[in-house]
Amino acid sequence: MSLVRVHNFSVSLDGFATGEGQRLDAPFGHAGSRLMQWAIGTRTFRAMGLHGDSEASFGVDDAFAGAWGPGIGAEIMGRNKFGPQRGPWENEEWKGWWGENPVFHTPVVVLTHHLRPALEMDGGTTFHFVDAGPAVALEQARALAGGLDVRIGGGAITIRQFLAADLIDHLHVVVVPIILGRGERLWEGLEGLEERFDIEATPSPSGVVHLVGTRRGAR
Amino acid sequence: MSLVRVHNFSVSLDGFATGEGQRLDAPFGHAGSRLMQWAIGTRTFRAMGLHGDSEASFGVDDAFAGAWGPGIGAEIMGRNKFGPQRGPWENEEWKGWWGENPVFHTPVVVLTHHLRPALEMDGGTTFHFVDAGPAVALEQARALAGGLDVRIGGGAITIRQFLAADLIDHLHVVVVPIILGRGERLWEGLEGLEERFDIEATPSPSGVVHLVGTRRGAR
Repeated sequence: MSLVRVHNFSVSLDGFATGEGQRLDAPFGHAGSRLMQWAIGTRTFRAMGLHGDSEASFGVDDAFAGAWGPGIGAEIMGRNKFGPQRGPWENEEWKGWWGENPVFHTPVVVLTHHLRPALEMDGGTTFHFVDAGPAVALEQARALAGGLDVRIGGGAITIRQFLAADLIDHLHVVVVPIILGRGERLWEGLEGLEERFDIEATPSPSGVVHLVGTRRGAR
Repeated sequence: MSLVRVHNFSVSLDGFATGEGQRLDAPFGHAGSRLMQWAIGTRTFRAMGLHGDSEASFGVDDAFAGAWGPGIGAEIMGRNKFGPQRGPWENEEWKGWWGENPVFHTPVVVLTHHLRPALEMDGGTTFHFVDAGPAVALEQARALAGGLDVRIGGGAITIRQFLAADLIDHLHVVVVPIILGRGERLWEGLEGLEERFDIEATPSPSGVVHLVGTRRGAR
């Protein structure tokens, strides 16, 4: 059976996965790029076409960042990760933040109450728009994943839903030592989550701490 | 000039420093002893008369735990750390959670709107009840500390007040990998705190992560 995995999901020390005020020019709201700063310089993110100012890093941050792709056959993301719009689509011109050749290279299930036709992009990424809860969405993603693992790509609300439904086997969360103060909280409503996971912590010279949670009983 | 220090202050992954429902038989509310489990087994806490079930530990948790005492001339604590009562004192029989010979062995300033006479205990601890904001309370504690450092002992509300007033030089916070879901949050109202601190993270085999913040410009 394929695993359900979360990778490279960053939260502030006070538990916010995104800031307040997501907009087209501010995908993380007032958090800016601070939550992903640890990743931008890694070899893995450079290879996705994301550029920082410094030399590419090959250290522990890159080791974790690079675990994102291998073995993944499909991603599930929330609509807020797909784009800044809310409510019904005004038109179908928006094709995600990632250009004509998105970084995913697999089918991607976008959770939304506002359906639209599947969107086939270059490089193997197809966005499928699905109005369903976590269990049904996961069934659909598994059908698209060809026996491989399914990644839950975020944002916070989506990951919370899958954690609450106990559907996540592997949880990689990166604690960034900043206090955001406002935005979307990851851990809300998940009291006692630690009883279902073994948790390992690894600090990085960049200042972040990589937490890896493995669901007890997960393969 | 003496430093202002916080030591061994534990928070859950979702940022709670204590659970809900503090009572005489539950000083941390529904959190129970989970936030302090990492410390109970250390040589330092054993020497204070706190007993766990396992052998005393001499590792990184003890190294951090033991930095609590040396160089400290006074502590400041909130009234909720001193006891479970709220509002005016019904009588003056309550002398803290720590017995006749408290672990502090220094003057302790207890912040409260409800004054009562200073309380001299065995072993050098005297509780002084003070109705003042952080800056004035710190002046009083420094006068009692004989040139040594002042420890801010908690709880969360007290530490938040001193952080908001930018009065803390050395901040040791222990992130415990549990999700409490409710209680008193440490980081509330402290957006951007990281701009004032250099932060270092050290994981422990016990599963907690020790964060040490050093205020920029602090000696």
